[in-house]
Amino acid sequence: MIKNESDILDYIQDKINTKSTNVVKSIGDDCAVIRISNKQSFVITIDTSLEGPHFTKDYTAFEIGYKSLSTNLSDIAAMGCEPKYIFMSITIPKLDTKWIKLFYKGIATHVSKYNLALIGGDTNRGPLSISIQVIGINKYKILYRNSANINDDIYVSGKLGLARAALILKNKKKFIKEFNILKKYLHMPIPRIEAGLKLSKFANSCIDISDGLMKDLTNIIQQSNCGAEIYLEKIPTHKILKEAIPKNKYYECLIGGGEDYELCFTASKSKRKNIQLISENLKLPLTIVGKVTKKNILFKENGFEKKLNIKGFDHFG
Amino acid sequence: MIKNESDILDYIQDKINTKSTNVVKSIGDDCAVIRISNKQSFVITIDTSLEGPHFTKDYTAFEIGYKSLSTNLSDIAAMGCEPKYIFMSITIPKLDTKWIKLFYKGIATHVSKYNLALIGGDTNRGPLSISIQVIGINKYKILYRNSANINDDIYVSGKLGLARAALILKNKKKFIKEFNILKKYLHMPIPRIEAGLKLSKFANSCIDISDGLMKDLTNIIQQSNCGAEIYLEKIPTHKILKEAIPKNKYYECLIGGGEDYELCFTASKSKRKNIQLISENLKLPLTIVGKVTKKNILFKENGFEKKLNIKGFDHFG
Repeated sequence: MIKNESDILDYIQDKINTKSTNVVKSIGDDCAVIRISNKQSFVITIDTSLEGPHFTKDYTAFEIGYKSLSTNLSDIAAMGCEPKYIFMSITIPKLDTKWIKLFYKGIATHVSKYNLALIGGDTNRGPLSISIQVIGINKYKILYRNSANINDDIYVSGKLGLARAALILKNKKKFIKEFNILKKYLHMPIPRIEAGLKLSKFANSCIDISDGLMKDLTNIIQQSNCGAEIYLEKIPTHKILKEAIPKNKYYECLIGGGEDYELCFTASKSKRKNIQLISENLKLPLTIVGKVTKKNILFKENGFEKKLNIKGFDHFG
Repeated sequence: MIKNESDILDYIQDKINTKSTNVVKSIGDDCAVIRISNKQSFVITIDTSLEGPHFTKDYTAFEIGYKSLSTNLSDIAAMGCEPKYIFMSITIPKLDTKWIKLFYKGIATHVSKYNLALIGGDTNRGPLSISIQVIGINKYKILYRNSANINDDIYVSGKLGLARAALILKNKKKFIKEFNILKKYLHMPIPRIEAGLKLSKFANSCIDISDGLMKDLTNIIQQSNCGAEIYLEKIPTHKILKEAIPKNKYYECLIGGGEDYELCFTASKSKRKNIQLISENLKLPLTIVGKVTKKNILFKENGFEKKLNIKGFDHFG
């Protein structure tokens, strides 16, 4: 029986060949990695954005274009690499000139900023759906999920839970002001490309937080065959979460909610100064929120263990 | 105003960067081409298959998987290259174990036959949609659309019009037998990988016939800045087209209908023997159906010009 996304992955890996010469990393990380020379590899990701799970009717066409590419670029950032080439296969219900132009403006924003090239694609008519593939190259080391070391610090970039909080506050009359402050984190997440690139010199492992810290950190922990301790009070967030989000949904936002597209990475204690410097240069918080242990994931709040019944996002969960 | 697929392409090429170091071919051919070393390039295609334009409710899950990958492999064949790596982003309405297993059997058929590796992807819930990206590498020369030479022979592989004829005969009680003969050409087109690879030694230009010979040949002709003469009576097809297809739809099937996924290529007259040999080895008809001229596309039947009012497939046409 196939009951969720990870069952599908298991079935594929059991029945279909996923290995090949020069494939350094196949299914199971933010990107696949193909070696193209002694020093260089392509890191490649493909993601589809759909109305419903990824954007809603209130998004502008610009935001849909921007976010669709953001989520892919975030996968390249999580590998510590530089995005280069993009391919887009879009399905649109009709030819609305204004919509199409705005949509591609959202795409073009990233293309200009990161010096990308859109080099291939496909256009179809049907229910709105945007599949984007990005190819990146390594500048320094490639960051994987499976290489966290015991006693590494666990970091997150930026602030967590803001996208989820925006989703909860949307359409609530009482919280229009708060929603307007958080909206950009949900509609236009910034891929942490510069941070990923710079961190690739110092971090041991990395993932992007697309399905919530709990689920994404679990991927690092399981693949690295170790454990983790997380200090909940250290996770940076926005004060609106304490003020406007119902108490029973606070932790769901903070560590269960997806779509933050921040980075979660681990690094040796000896790299704290280097990472601090990157944080200052980029004006981006890079905060230690826990440490890698031998086994199990433990959440603590102010020194006490906290049991949390939260699961990350699964499209069929 | 954006009125069709090609207007979208024009808009993209006008507003978004499509060029980059090492990108030998960007938007405008069956695949994009990225140089990875002096001798080797990656050829890359992405295509989405949807219910409606690409398959219908009567397709089995196996056929949907098979055909979705066929159409992408056909793009690699058209470049004369060898497919290596695939990425799949699928959107499915629900987790139907039987459906999913059959679908991946269709995929696995190609993966085994062509020694591919499925190395990345994404799964979502929503209206059925399959986006596949294939990366191939060149073994010999890469075949483009823009390099036909005047006086080249124009060839097609296999037989044309069969997929379109099957679509027309589907659900017609009188033609159940005929439909059953042609069905496989519509539901399970064979990508001409071996032919493309072998032809890459001898052909000058190539495209796959996904939108009908008329439209696809026009792409070669326009990009190569030349013309063509096509001898309609020489285009190989199945006798069912003469027997069962209404006369007013015969040419629409033969040169207007999409989804044949055969190759249309041009080669110098001096290569006729080499190409004949490939045809014999592969047991695949490779038929001369016309020649490259200085300008305009002219259709002739038994020596007389034939005016045809047919346009190829456009998703928004």
